[in-house]
Amino acid sequence: MKENRYDDPIFFEKYSHMPRSEHGLEAAGEWEALQTLLPDFAHKRVLDLGCGYGWHCAYALEHGAAAVTGVDISEKMLAVARKKTGTGNVSYIRAAMEDVDFPDGSFDVVLSSLALHYVASFTDMARKIYRWLAPGGDFVFSIEHPIFTAYGNQDWYRDAEGNILHFPVDNYFFEGVREAVFLGERVTKYHHTLTTVLDGLLACGFTLRRVVEPQPPARMLDMEGMRDELRRPMMLLTAARKA
Amino acid sequence: MKENRYDDPIFFEKYSHMPRSEHGLEAAGEWEALQTLLPDFAHKRVLDLGCGYGWHCAYALEHGAAAVTGVDISEKMLAVARKKTGTGNVSYIRAAMEDVDFPDGSFDVVLSSLALHYVASFTDMARKIYRWLAPGGDFVFSIEHPIFTAYGNQDWYRDAEGNILHFPVDNYFFEGVREAVFLGERVTKYHHTLTTVLDGLLACGFTLRRVVEPQPPARMLDMEGMRDELRRPMMLLTAARKA
Repeated sequence: MKENRYDDPIFFEKYSHMPRSEHGLEAAGEWEALQTLLPDFAHKRVLDLGCGYGWHCAYALEHGAAAVTGVDISEKMLAVARKKTGTGNVSYIRAAMEDVDFPDGSFDVVLSSLALHYVASFTDMARKIYRWLAPGGDFVFSIEHPIFTAYGNQDWYRDAEGNILHFPVDNYFFEGVREAVFLGERVTKYHHTLTTVLDGLLACGFTLRRVVEPQPPARMLDMEGMRDELRRPMMLLTAARKA
Repeated sequence: MKENRYDDPIFFEKYSHMPRSEHGLEAAGEWEALQTLLPDFAHKRVLDLGCGYGWHCAYALEHGAAAVTGVDISEKMLAVARKKTGTGNVSYIRAAMEDVDFPDGSFDVVLSSLALHYVASFTDMARKIYRWLAPGGDFVFSIEHPIFTAYGNQDWYRDAEGNILHFPVDNYFFEGVREAVFLGERVTKYHHTLTTVLDGLLACGFTLRRVVEPQPPARMLDMEGMRDELRRPMMLLTAARKA
């Protein structure tokens, strides 16, 4: 059974107070960078894997997508998403993204925002996405950076007074389950190496268009903890295309 | 003036006793992985930037290269390289790799083994290499991993007894000079982010063929310290092609 943390009332309540939950894409530190990787959505069939609140589904619709499909394991997330994109040509599927399937060539764009680190096999997922895309189709995603997921707890290494010393990396080539702490709650994630992600995409037949580690925009640097985001990469953004 | 550590007699003496210096490619932990990224050398014009002892120049010649050019800043390195590849169609240039120039389309293959972290601007170097390559030409290189270069001293973080705790990452998005310790000697290196390397290659016009973080082969795992190489990525191998 795939973990469904977002339907836990306490976890969901905490998540709902994050800036990105309350204020959407503009409040996400990586959004300005991610936007530069997105394709033209006009008349496209779009799939969003791990769509959460549906911010990216709404964005695709607003930018002319012909149809959008959002997949998420959490009913609470989808309830918010349905409200947000009520009248558009959008359908939501409640399922773990590993469990859905679509006919070959069903989509022109596949998006996934900060969800693929919940998947045990990145490679299996990438192969399916390649199959679901029409030729020339785009796969654009953000994922927690392999450096961020390797150690496990996803926290800084601190001195006795609690001051940040650095970010720890360990067990890098041992892929698999990590028990991380997010919003003060235990969450199961999966560590994949950069090789598994990027060389895996190439092995599937994708070409790589962009590979970006986002930095918070200057306007956010005075927010609490944001300058520390310059001390280690937390996310990896990738734009790949099916030949 | 670019740093020339390898002409320092003490540094060079220490380097000459490393397994890879005494025994060549087979003794390099990354060689088995790097080999899978190399193109067919038959009838190719090959440039090796930071050629050192000339192991890769010799390999290219043995595999049918039409002509090989090796560039290195160190006269001591080139003296060894000249001996190793004496009779082949090879020429050596003593220069910092930032200072050489060639006519457009001069080479079919550009190699660089563990040398590009000595270059202040990866982007400038990549642009030149793109220009020097003929259409369809290959650029294959190993570079110290951005995770390995970010912190600076390139050493493990240890407890009071000297036991390894983890590998530290810090100052990731602050690119530039790092004073590392290699073979017990101070060496100036440059930290580049993964974005600068991979997205930089894409921005130049290269397509990415392979992106690999090498793991030591099973036969080496009982060598001293080699199992620790599974705890963090030390190198990044990349194969790129000029469209």
